[in-house]
Amino acid sequence: MAVYTHLPAEALAALIAQYDVGRLVSAKGIAEGVSNSNWLLETTGPGGRGARYILTMYERRIDLADLPYFLDLLDHLSSAGAPVPRTIHDRLGKSFRLVDGKAVALIEFLPGVSVGRPTPAQARAVGAALARMHLAAQGFGRHRGNTLDPAANVATLARCGEAALSRIDPALPVWVGKGQGLLRQWPAELPQSVIHSDLFPDNVLMLDDHVTGMIDFYFACTDAMAYDLAVTHAAWSFEPGGDSFRPEIGTALVQGYLSVRPLKEEELAALPLLAQGACLRFVASRAEDWIDTPPDAHVMRKDPMDFVRRWDFYAEHAASVFA
Amino acid sequence: MAVYTHLPAEALAALIAQYDVGRLVSAKGIAEGVSNSNWLLETTGPGGRGARYILTMYERRIDLADLPYFLDLLDHLSSAGAPVPRTIHDRLGKSFRLVDGKAVALIEFLPGVSVGRPTPAQARAVGAALARMHLAAQGFGRHRGNTLDPAANVATLARCGEAALSRIDPALPVWVGKGQGLLRQWPAELPQSVIHSDLFPDNVLMLDDHVTGMIDFYFACTDAMAYDLAVTHAAWSFEPGGDSFRPEIGTALVQGYLSVRPLKEEELAALPLLAQGACLRFVASRAEDWIDTPPDAHVMRKDPMDFVRRWDFYAEHAASVFA
Repeated sequence: MAVYTHLPAEALAALIAQYDVGRLVSAKGIAEGVSNSNWLLETTGPGGRGARYILTMYERRIDLADLPYFLDLLDHLSSAGAPVPRTIHDRLGKSFRLVDGKAVALIEFLPGVSVGRPTPAQARAVGAALARMHLAAQGFGRHRGNTLDPAANVATLARCGEAALSRIDPALPVWVGKGQGLLRQWPAELPQSVIHSDLFPDNVLMLDDHVTGMIDFYFACTDAMAYDLAVTHAAWSFEPGGDSFRPEIGTALVQGYLSVRPLKEEELAALPLLAQGACLRFVASRAEDWIDTPPDAHVMRKDPMDFVRRWDFYAEHAASVFA
Repeated sequence: MAVYTHLPAEALAALIAQYDVGRLVSAKGIAEGVSNSNWLLETTGPGGRGARYILTMYERRIDLADLPYFLDLLDHLSSAGAPVPRTIHDRLGKSFRLVDGKAVALIEFLPGVSVGRPTPAQARAVGAALARMHLAAQGFGRHRGNTLDPAANVATLARCGEAALSRIDPALPVWVGKGQGLLRQWPAELPQSVIHSDLFPDNVLMLDDHVTGMIDFYFACTDAMAYDLAVTHAAWSFEPGGDSFRPEIGTALVQGYLSVRPLKEEELAALPLLAQGACLRFVASRAEDWIDTPPDAHVMRKDPMDFVRRWDFYAEHAASVFA
């Protein structure tokens, strides 16, 4: 949660002038995104009635060659009726521009707030929205491989090294081997689409029980839809900041998904393993971040052990959880 | 620049329900304030037509006993026509509430952006707005002493200790003595009012050459109006992030002030010294913050040497600057 770059008003106004969005009225750096800087902009709007936008500056991690994929995906999903913010294109039709050598994009602002502790009705709505997004994405026709697939995640975790992992938590190194075990059983050939692959509550905007926005598609890629459901399950179905499973949330999430897109038998059968793979992904990325992030960096480091405990839970109970 | 506390949507909605502002539509943590957490809230508004507010949570440094002073001051200045956000009172009429033991206040949202490198026209507008605020505050009738007066600032700097100051910069310790020298010449009996005493460009919202908002009054106190002008001069009249004086900005700022409130002879004569005292204030608070802030804290430390250089400039040139 940070704004990494200071963009003075003059630079923002000059940037905004390249878009048909009216004149700048307000700009607030917002504390969202760990790899990007974001501003909530208010302008006089294209019709003079006022409009709001999110301006994102891509600071790290994003391969610029991937940016058209992410930004075009937003447009595709939005056009297909999914609650996804569309990309605002500049007067030349470009989806992103460069400011001081960094890519920036102007994104539609969507109402809604991120829930802290979801209700079953909210989890059901999120499951349904995820399934609708999977279906809406099927006409997208662009491909991006999953750079964070289980093989990559196991490799990342192994690369951290036993010593560094032990320093995070003495119980962590053993999970490298468990990741390798997962990898050997990983199901191939599950039905694919574009997946969000990071749909934490932070990345869902809601009003009451309605999903008004799914945001932050910067891990989107082509992969198994059931894996995306498993990621969302692992991200939503535990007490916030804890490892206590909330069965009513997990059940509502899956039922919401099924209400829109029935799962094939092999997808259902794979869910216990996929949920463990989802945990592996966050254990690996958080462990790497923990080691790579200098303690004086202006970002909060997330404890990889949260997802070790969820992984452990799935390893023991997933068969009944997804029964 | 940080949001220190995570307030989930549920907590925000429950809080908002205590005010006549409609229902919560959006909430973004904003990267403003170094001692507070702030959110930009959008609600359906008291009349159902949509409204925006700033929610501030007071994290540190603020003495709760001072909060009614700050919040009532906003109301007083706003009622007197100054471009200052008013405090939104809750259904019981209270100007602040407690959430998890921390005080929070809901503040009017004002349009405008903070300029990075002001133009003379903008500096003139800010000078005039500052003078108008001084005049508007004179009916306020409440008193708060300046806890950051020169004596306190010299004491703060001395308390840092020569060793710690040297570690920041070998040239820093000598300024303790210079501060003591300032103190001996400090003018008494200058005309007083409520002063902002921290009116950096970050704390002024502008649209083109108009001041739409003066914000962050949490250092406001009763003190010499000319000192406030000197603080603003030291904060605005140098190249952003540098120590190169911009005479056209300093002149425009003072002229703008004089266009609304003429300075008495003794105020004019005191400006060179007051400007050095303004620099002392920021050298002292930045040095203290630098030493007190753990390097892994999620806040950016500001270099006290920036204001040592400005102080040095005023010591050498202020007589001609304010001629």
